[in-house]
Parts: sequence; C-alpha cells; structure tokens
Amino acid sequence: MNNEAIYAATTVKSWNVALTGIQKLLSSLKDEDFQREVAPGRNRIYYLVGHLAAVHDRLLPMLALGERLHPELDDIFISHPDRALADKYSGAELRQMFAEINAAVTKAIETMPPADLLKRHEAVSAEDFEKDPLRNRLSVFQSRTAHISFHAGQIRLAV
Amino acid sequence: MNNEAIYAATTVKSWNVALTGIQKLLSSLKDEDFQREVAPGRNRIYYLVGHLAAVHDRLLPMLALGERLHPELDDIFISHPDRALADKYSGAELRQMFAEINAAVTKAIETMPPADLLKRHEAVSAEDFEKDPLRNRLSVFQSRTAHISFHAGQIRLAV
Repeated sequence: MNNEAIYAATTVKSWNVALTGIQKLLSSLKDEDFQREVAPGRNRIYYLVGHLAAVHDRLLPMLALGERLHPELDDIFISHPDRALADKYSGAELRQMFAEINAAVTKAIETMPPADLLKRHEAVSAEDFEKDPLRNRLSVFQSRTAHISFHAGQIRLAV
Repeated sequence: MNNEAIYAATTVKSWNVALTGIQKLLSSLKDEDFQREVAPGRNRIYYLVGHLAAVHDRLLPMLALGERLHPELDDIFISHPDRALADKYSGAELRQMFAEINAAVTKAIETMPPADLLKRHEAVSAEDFEKDPLRNRLSVFQSRTAHISFHAGQIRLAV
C-alpha cells in the first residue's frame, strides 16, 4: 500500500471501530431497552439509533457512494426531535435498517479509490471547494465517525 | 498541497473540530458546574475534563510529539474512577491544563510531516507494526479524536 492508501484505510478502520463500539452497546440491549432515555428527560436510545441510521443514509448521496436506502427516516429522526411523532418502527426494525445502511456505506467507502475521498462532497459548491480543499468527502466521513462516538457516549450511560 | 498533505490536514481539522466542540460546551459552564454528573450516579464533568487532559498528555510521547506536561494527572484521572480520590485541582486549574496540553498536541501534530503520521506509535512493537501498518500514529490520533466526542456527548447532557 502506498501512503495515500494507508491514510484511507486507517480512516475507514476508525469508522469501523466506532461502528463496532456502538453495535456492541446495542447488542447488549433488548429491543424494549431502546425505550430507555440516555439521561432523565433526554433522547431515547430508540431515537438515537434512528438518528444515526438516517444520518448515515444521507452519506450515500453526499459522498457519491450510491442512492439512499431509507430516506423516509429523515422526517422522524432528523426533522423532528424525539417523541414528536409516534414510533413507527420496532427496535428490531431499527437495528436492521441501521445495519443495512452501515454495511452499504462501509462497502462503498472501502472500494472508493483513496484519491476520491479527497474530492468535493455534494453539499459544498465547486467554488467553495476551490477555496478550501479540506471541505472534502474525507472531512465529512470523519465528522460522521465522531458523531457515532458522540451518541455512543450517551447510550453508554443507559446500558 | 499534495494528497498526503490534504489527508493529514483533514485529520488534524477533525481533531480541532472535536476540541472546539468540547471547549464550547465547557466555556458555557462555571467552574462549580464541573461538579455536575453527566447522568445520575455517573462521572462528573470535573472527572471527564481531567480524564481527557491526561489521555491527551499521553499522546505526546506515544506519537513522538514531545515530553509529557502533566503525568501527575494519570493517578487521579486514569488509574482511579471518579471520586475515588479527593479533588486536587480547581475547575480553573483543570481548564488551564486541558488547554495547555491540547495546544501542545495540536502544535506538534500540525508540524509533523504527513508521512510521519503513518509511522509506528510507541505502544506497538516493530514486529506487530510490520504485520499491520494500520497500527500507526494516525490511527491512535483518530481514536483519541473519537474519544473526545464520546465524552463530549456525555457532557452535553449536563449543559
């Protein structure tokens, strides 16, 4: 592997480590445990799993990895806060969608040529990217990796 | 910048974004607020700030960035859980050490040649690194970036 490929592989490894961490937390929970709040009056685990699934699903078009799998998640888990809408999915269904979306993102990112990770992502204009080449796909991907850990730290409190 | 330099700069940016996020949370708190628990019966913010400071201080020798600044933090904030030992520092002192350590790590990592980030870190043997070149400094650095977000997510619940 050349250095660029090692850079890319190390970043994908960090994503996989974050996913493994949260999946380990979730695997210790029964579906009904998803109703627990991470702290009194705060988000339920149910909401955070759906939120992460929706955010990761949005990575697919944003990083040019493919079509979205579950755009219907946005309304409940991004546009609205927890408990604003009635629960539409079982814990098992959320787990399944989360796993499916993560597998799609991971597979696509692992096969992307390392140089392509430094290309412009779909939420930045060509003009802005010209001014700041760090507004690349890699930056978004690392931000989403940190986002997993942010919510994993919260879920950890309720496990 | 060549691609390797963009990879390095993007990763350092992710670290800085994580630090900015947690410092924003902490700056909204008074020193006495550090006594708050992130959830009932869980770690205090006080402990998490000291814990992050100690873990980041350990990055200095681990990534060959320099000598440690505050090795005395380990006993309280790594070897022992919260409240096992009496509080030795004020909130203001913890903030100061955390800022000082983060500045040292950031400055050193920003001036490290991009290829050096892919070298072996000090906690892996040459033999193991030979087998797995992803056990590099970059991997540890990304792991510590995720670690900031993990605890930031918890502190967020108490802010």
